Amino acid sequence: MKLLLVNPNTTVSMTDKMRDAACAVASPGTDIVALTARYGPESIEGYYDEVFSIPAMLDAVKAHPDASGVVVGCFDDTGVDAARCVTSVPVIGICQAAMQVASIVSGSFTVVTTLSRSVPALEHLARRYGYSDLCRRVRASEIPVLALEDPDSGARDQLRSEVRRALDEDGCESIVLGCAGMVGMARSLSEELGVPVVEGVTAAVKIVEGLAVLGIATSKRGGYASPRAKAYTGAFSRYRPGYRTTPAER
Amino acid sequence: MKLLLVNPNTTVSMTDKMRDAACAVASPGTDIVALTARYGPESIEGYYDEVFSIPAMLDAVKAHPDASGVVVGCFDDTGVDAARCVTSVPVIGICQAAMQVASIVSGSFTVVTTLSRSVPALEHLARRYGYSDLCRRVRASEIPVLALEDPDSGARDQLRSEVRRALDEDGCESIVLGCAGMVGMARSLSEELGVPVVEGVTAAVKIVEGLAVLGIATSKRGGYASPRAKAYTGAFSRYRPGYRTTPAER
Amino acid sequence: MKLLLVNPNTTVSMTDKMRDAACAVASPGTDIVALTARYGPESIEGYYDEVFSIPAMLDAVKAHPDASGVVVGCFDDTGVDAARCVTSVPVIGICQAAMQVASIVSGSFTVVTTLSRSVPALEHLARRYGYSDLCRRVRASEIPVLALEDPDSGARDQLRSEVRRALDEDGCESIVLGCAGMVGMARSLSEELGVPVVEGVTAAVKIVEGLAVLGIATSKRGGYASPRAKAYTGAFSRYRPGYRTTPAER
Amino acid sequence: MKLLLVNPNTTVSMTDKMRDAACAVASPGTDIVALTARYGPESIEGYYDEVFSIPAMLDAVKAHPDASGVVVGCFDDTGVDAARCVTSVPVIGICQAAMQVASIVSGSFTVVTTLSRSVPALEHLARRYGYSDLCRRVRASEIPVLALEDPDSGARDQLRSEVRRALDEDGCESIVLGCAGMVGMARSLSEELGVPVVEGVTAAVKIVEGLAVLGIATSKRGGYASPRAKAYTGAFSRYRPGYRTTPAER
Amino acid sequence: MKLLLVNPNTTVSMTDKMRDAACAVASPGTDIVALTARYGPESIEGYYDEVFSIPAMLDAVKAHPDASGVVVGCFDDTGVDAARCVTSVPVIGICQAAMQVASIVSGSFTVVTTLSRSVPALEHLARRYGYSDLCRRVRASEIPVLALEDPDSGARDQLRSEVRRALDEDGCESIVLGCAGMVGMARSLSEELGVPVVEGVTAAVKIVEGLAVLGIATSKRGGYASPRAKAYTGAFSRYRPGYRTTPAER
Amino acid sequence: MKLLLVNPNTTVSMTDKMRDAACAVASPGTDIVALTARYGPESIEGYYDEVFSIPAMLDAVKAHPDASGVVVGCFDDTGVDAARCVTSVPVIGICQAAMQVASIVSGSFTVVTTLSRSVPALEHLARRYGYSDLCRRVRASEIPVLALEDPDSGARDQLRSEVRRALDEDGCESIVLGCAGMVGMARSLSEELGVPVVEGVTAAVKIVEGLAVLGIATSKRGGYASPRAKAYTGAFSRYRPGYRTTPAER
Repeated sequence: MKLLLVNPNTTVSMTDKMRDAACAVASPGTDIVALTARYGPESIEGYYDEVFSIPAMLDAVKAHPDASGVVVGCFDDTGVDAARCVTSVPVIGICQAAMQVASIVSGSFTVVTTLSRSVPALEHLARRYGYSDLCRRVRASEIPVLALEDPDSGARDQLRSEVRRALDEDGCESIVLGCAGMVGMARSLSEELGVPVVEGVTAAVKIVEGLAVLGIATSKRGGYASPRAKAYTGAFSRYRPGYRTTPAER
Repeated sequence: MKLLLVNPNTTVSMTDKMRDAACAVASPGTDIVALTARYGPESIEGYYDEVFSIPAMLDAVKAHPDASGVVVGCFDDTGVDAARCVTSVPVIGICQAAMQVASIVSGSFTVVTTLSRSVPALEHLARRYGYSDLCRRVRASEIPVLALEDPDSGARDQLRSEVRRALDEDGCESIVLGCAGMVGMARSLSEELGVPVVEGVTAAVKIVEGLAVLGIATSKRGGYASPRAKAYTGAFSRYRPGYRTTPAER
Repeated sequence: MKLLLVNPNTTVSMTDKMRDAACAVASPGTDIVALTARYGPESIEGYYDEVFSIPAMLDAVKAHPDASGVVVGCFDDTGVDAARCVTSVPVIGICQAAMQVASIVSGSFTVVTTLSRSVPALEHLARRYGYSDLCRRVRASEIPVLALEDPDSGARDQLRSEVRRALDEDGCESIVLGCAGMVGMARSLSEELGVPVVEGVTAAVKIVEGLAVLGIATSKRGGYASPRAKAYTGAFSRYRPGYRTTPAER
Repeated sequence: MKLLLVNPNTTVSMTDKMRDAACAVASPGTDIVALTARYGPESIEGYYDEVFSIPAMLDAVKAHPDASGVVVGCFDDTGVDAARCVTSVPVIGICQAAMQVASIVSGSFTVVTTLSRSVPALEHLARRYGYSDLCRRVRASEIPVLALEDPDSGARDQLRSEVRRALDEDGCESIVLGCAGMVGMARSLSEELGVPVVEGVTAAVKIVEGLAVLGIATSKRGGYASPRAKAYTGAFSRYRPGYRTTPAER
Repeated sequence: MKLLLVNPNTTVSMTDKMRDAACAVASPGTDIVALTARYGPESIEGYYDEVFSIPAMLDAVKAHPDASGVVVGCFDDTGVDAARCVTSVPVIGICQAAMQVASIVSGSFTVVTTLSRSVPALEHLARRYGYSDLCRRVRASEIPVLALEDPDSGARDQLRSEVRRALDEDGCESIVLGCAGMVGMARSLSEELGVPVVEGVTAAVKIVEGLAVLGIATSKRGGYASPRAKAYTGAFSRYRPGYRTTPAER
Repeated sequence: MKLLLVNPNTTVSMTDKMRDAACAVASPGTDIVALTARYGPESIEGYYDEVFSIPAMLDAVKAHPDASGVVVGCFDDTGVDAARCVTSVPVIGICQAAMQVASIVSGSFTVVTTLSRSVPALEHLARRYGYSDLCRRVRASEIPVLALEDPDSGARDQLRSEVRRALDEDGCESIVLGCAGMVGMARSLSEELGVPVVEGVTAAVKIVEGLAVLGIATSKRGGYASPRAKAYTGAFSRYRPGYRTTPAER
């Protein structure tokens, strides 16, 4: 089985981290195809970046019609609804995946994300996915996304501090890490703090892999119906091949 | 005062209709600059089309830094959050505008839109804008958007039938027309049926014009903070000049 | 076009401030007719005062059948539903107006009002208007309404302090001033603090003026149907002429 | 113990029916003092009538400082919040009382009221009291309130028909009768249809009587704090003695 | 009239306290039959204990078919839905009773309960009963349930401290005591702090007594329909006589 | 890896069907241990049956401390919260599992269950899990649970009819089968009707298996903390060995 893991931003080191984490949890028969957006923003921090990250992500999905499932590797779940229109295999974003997992292993959670500017979009997602009550708070650690790629940035310590504050002040029973770039940090934080710390990339891989085994397809009745044939005027067609494949080594 | 009215799809006849309606209600000192997206979908019907309609819309907003307000002329309010990031003047979509107006002149409303595939996105907007209770139902008339541009399509009769059904079955006190292409149909339907029939383009023009007079700017604290400087890899920058101006005649 | 601006309390200095602010933002062709309740409470602080402020307000609305729109100048939106029954022109309260504006220019807001006793009624309004999520908190500054009329009361400093606390503690992106008596304070606070500070009187004037231009009437289907002919036993009829006109000087 | 049962409209025959029903369920030591508003509307049908029914109701409450509890005998719960400000004994409206009872004996209910114009106000009450989920629908039987006082109006048959429709179509487990004038109809409908049919007057009497025994007072912290001393300009003070006592015969 | 008051845990001293409080408020003609579960947990602290407390409670209800109403004396309202299936008389739990009372005498409340582990279950109840908005917070005082039975435990002081914190920090207008074991503490706290402090046992007794007088039965249409005849395999039938009666002395 | 699949009722044929379906989707290294409750109801239809099905289910969970995850095979998710207290491995009920899956592959769903008496409990679950908006309706097909075990009962046709009605009337994009006994019917219905038909047993197996691979444990902070040591008085301890293992053949 082939699963797509699409990083909608252009930072290859993030894709690499996500691919490694995904491969570590995938079942033996699952091939993770990790893709980096070829154009668009190098990190996704707020509404504006979201817009420009979606076309390349959709290109990637459309270029792999033989995939059995798709993970959108950005915690804003950018373009997930559109991706569900262009394929009939299951598609999930890492925010929805992480929140679903947290809702199984705890009665409430706090999301710790990067910058304040991303908080409102995540609050909207929490509400839309039905977690208004379970999600106690979305907190910004004020770590820029790309600082997570820099081992000398002190980002890990800053994140740990904000997670501790969440546990002290929010009355939450678990923590959700609110950025794809935090993919490698969940386990050690969980062991240190003694609560579930949920990370979305690996959660999404297992959920989509499970749906693929079940043979459940995306509904084509209603909002996720396939797009009508439409001649987009020029520009976007040039992007069709615009993704870059990060080979999955396992 | 200069107000932008951006049609995020590429169909000029829709822009023309919107511009005429906007000019008919604008204050004497207001110049309506009506813009048509130069690339992207020719109509916006569902999540997929939304994605490809936003970049050209944002180009238009960025190209007019002297505007005093922006109306996004698509009932899916596509890209409104992103547009609020790239300008500090007020920005509103025609869905939010129409629902705000309906909430003033009635205790409940039903939205009548085009195709079933658009219904879930509009239900999300109704919830996000706080109208879960007031919005009794989002109904599809199953009229394709572009049929609204064709006087021989029978679309007007089909729309009237669905509006009547809404009044008979939903217990609503007013009607919201759920597509920019229905811009010219509100008044006659209202007169015929004896209830408010709210249309978003003109509503949005008056609201944004009002905000401009009040001198209220978009908050730059939180979700609508300006985007960080970022080198998007190539592709999108080519689109910067990619809008087409429809001259506003008044 | 003639717009009514009704102050439901009997304090003329508040009407004067509201009228001045309204005239400063009204369009050239708009006449603001500012009315002060002739009987009833001199300020509206909580549920009890609300009751006694409505009859005189409704008298004012009924006495001006040629008005094109009505603004109810009390942040409790006292009697707005009843006013919508006695006229077919648009009616808005300054709370609904301010919250609608804040929902356009920001992703969340805090209301700063006068006394604690008014907080629950404003929380109800926030919920009823659909702003449960956007409205982060309703805060009392513990300034009595009439202290706002006294330049030596220190009210302005007290208000500024509470607004600062709101920005520090609530994670809100804008501020809504929760009392008609704060009408003149929005602009300077906004400039000082660098966030939108929304005030309802001017917001309501522009919204109702816009609706009047659009020609949208209040629905008479359902809750706002005209009252049935009824012989009220004596008392209230004596009040019919019970408002006082504050001449609008512009 | 003395309990006030205030009919906020001026129709004595309704007060009489309510008093009889109240006396039939009151405990031996409880005196029901049934009061009819001396001025104001003769029936309360919608937002406008509500306004004019409250002052006389509040007069009645203030005139009986020795009462141990207050029932407001109108299903719109008109003026209940204000009444809670002028007394420290428990006050309940018959809508809240009936919905509380229905929530104990069933998992869902439908309200059957009089005219369509009253439906939105009752929907607001259902939401405000927390019964958005339990209250399946508010239905109008299109019986004018005063027709309930006329034995030849056919109102009883019309009501039974609407209740049957509610049971057939709404999936509700019980029925709430949504008008004080339906006070005598609950038991026979319940026996005929085999489901709980809840009526608010008797429910409210037992609830308030219970609270009085418990010695629980209305909170004076926050929204129900006593009104500040205020010189209302003339008019309303004349009404102070404006209620009429219907002697309770038991 | 005979009312059952069932303590679903096995601690007789708690039943005794509840019985005394119930008898002190019951009407002259009401006999309180107070029952202690014969098997199951000695206190109910969280989801696990709830499970094992319900069978004995249901035995008690079934063994008294002549009762006119049932109070389940545990703030988790354990097994109330099941109890409504096995009888047609009204059944209420002390959590629902206390919250209903608090919603009448105040605009908001905070629940102060025993241990943190009980908080999520009470939050669920608050939501299910419709009090998401009114219930400002559920606080744990970290007093184990059985410490409330030990006069030397310092529990009363600890409780008072947490109640004070609730009033200082939560903006609530009243307090709900969130454990049956706090039954005797409401009045003195209320007098000391000057706000309503609501306790569920006495509240429930008065509510159920009132419903019994009204003759309102539990709906058998839908969720509370009687259980189908079913041969439970062995085990539970042995428990049928498994309750112990605490004689009500009055 | 060993996964427990516990049927909380005593009907072995249902366990067999669930085990077969679970084994068909489990990963190669996963052993499904399918357990049937040894005592309690033979089917779970409503609140009363739920109570008596939980102790045997918890016995099963406690008897397999080496399991890596637990599926509770009843659509009422009976006892899931308690099970999360007695183990630190992930536990999910088939209702939560099915709704999570449906929320990924569609924008809305209708649940089709067995009897009307089960509907309210499932509506509560939908709300508690956050699917108030997505879950359009919970429908009863009026098929008794055990009729699903009888090939001659016509249950399959009856179910298909109700599913068709759901698609015609509810505007839903997918179907959730609301009973463990429907475990084998999802695929054929989905193929016949062209929409996702989600079944909870297989969904839950894949979700819990995924969580086990991720190494995510149930939070012991808050509501799912381990039960305190407690000497239950006699009765329940006798049941400890009260489950029966259905050998998993694969």
